[in-house]
Amino acid sequence: MIIKVIGFSYSTNTLRVLSCLNELGIPYQLDAPANFAVTKEEDYLANKHPFGKIPVLYDGDYKIAESRAICRYLVSKYQGKYNNTILIPNDIHEAGLVEEFISYEAFYYEPPASKIVYYELFLKTPESEIVKQALKEINKVLDVFDKLLEGKEYLNGGFSLADLFYCPCAYYIYSTHADLWDKRPNVKKWLDRLRNRDAWKMSLEKKNKL
Amino acid sequence: MIIKVIGFSYSTNTLRVLSCLNELGIPYQLDAPANFAVTKEEDYLANKHPFGKIPVLYDGDYKIAESRAICRYLVSKYQGKYNNTILIPNDIHEAGLVEEFISYEAFYYEPPASKIVYYELFLKTPESEIVKQALKEINKVLDVFDKLLEGKEYLNGGFSLADLFYCPCAYYIYSTHADLWDKRPNVKKWLDRLRNRDAWKMSLEKKNKL
Repeated sequence: MIIKVIGFSYSTNTLRVLSCLNELGIPYQLDAPANFAVTKEEDYLANKHPFGKIPVLYDGDYKIAESRAICRYLVSKYQGKYNNTILIPNDIHEAGLVEEFISYEAFYYEPPASKIVYYELFLKTPESEIVKQALKEINKVLDVFDKLLEGKEYLNGGFSLADLFYCPCAYYIYSTHADLWDKRPNVKKWLDRLRNRDAWKMSLEKKNKL
Repeated sequence: MIIKVIGFSYSTNTLRVLSCLNELGIPYQLDAPANFAVTKEEDYLANKHPFGKIPVLYDGDYKIAESRAICRYLVSKYQGKYNNTILIPNDIHEAGLVEEFISYEAFYYEPPASKIVYYELFLKTPESEIVKQALKEINKVLDVFDKLLEGKEYLNGGFSLADLFYCPCAYYIYSTHADLWDKRPNVKKWLDRLRNRDAWKMSLEKKNKL
């Protein structure tokens, strides 16, 4: 039975999962809820996601929510099954360093990045204090990343799940704040590599078709 | 060579790692930096943590930072070596459900919880707007957890890394906002189970000795 993703094709969290599916070469179908309000209804909260979020993935009868948890599940179950792409290295020490970058994403990058995407691009309030503060924060974060990426193609050298996690917010924020990347040569080259990956482009094709 | 943890024994993030080490029965020593300012110095940023954070763990020559990344590394390398405690199940589907709860921790619980710990307990600004807003948020999160914990001892049934991740902030917040747990029977019983685990108590012994 084909894997089914419940999500909105424009959502950063959905794009994260689609990109992971495409990287690993896993066939899937994307089913969007009828509208955003559906995700806050009692049935959705009880049966799909207790916090009313997307995406949710069904692999046969098995259901799993939360984009980063879904990606980890897909790696554990399908990495190496459809192609040779490695998102979490088998070597425990290498995997640990990928985990470091995954943690930086969750706790330093995602908080300001998701605020910029949500308040500036979705709610259309680019002048809000929340956006201004988030831009200050993300500037500091990208300064650190520009150093960490010196001499490397991707965060941990080779492409990994960590890089994949950063891409969806960067894709959106770059559309209004290209300077954040353009003025930092290493993060700019990194973003270009991320945006040029076939799997990422395939994820956006889904977006354009809806 | 014994595992070395660089961190402050009172820090929620350090306690998370100590608790994981104790759960898995791994011998370690805790080395505190001379003071907080040291973690922001050039040498520390260049060689220990690029964002100037603790904890950092050394396993021989191997260095890894970020409490949750460290815990994942410890599970991958040492789970089952010193005792029979399982923090991430071997079954891929069970592990995926633990990942869901780990993601709830990172994206719904930690943001308000860490603000309460930092602004109320460390900076001693309990009346700040940030704390008030965070208390509103964590109330909603604990409402959901009270439902999710219905009929279960721990989040995923048996104890897992997900439960362990929640404990350090809960420990601190309970000291000033016991009502958040006391008025919700399932989260209260859950917290009692977490606080009564030997590994957690051992982590606090380290705290008391400093």
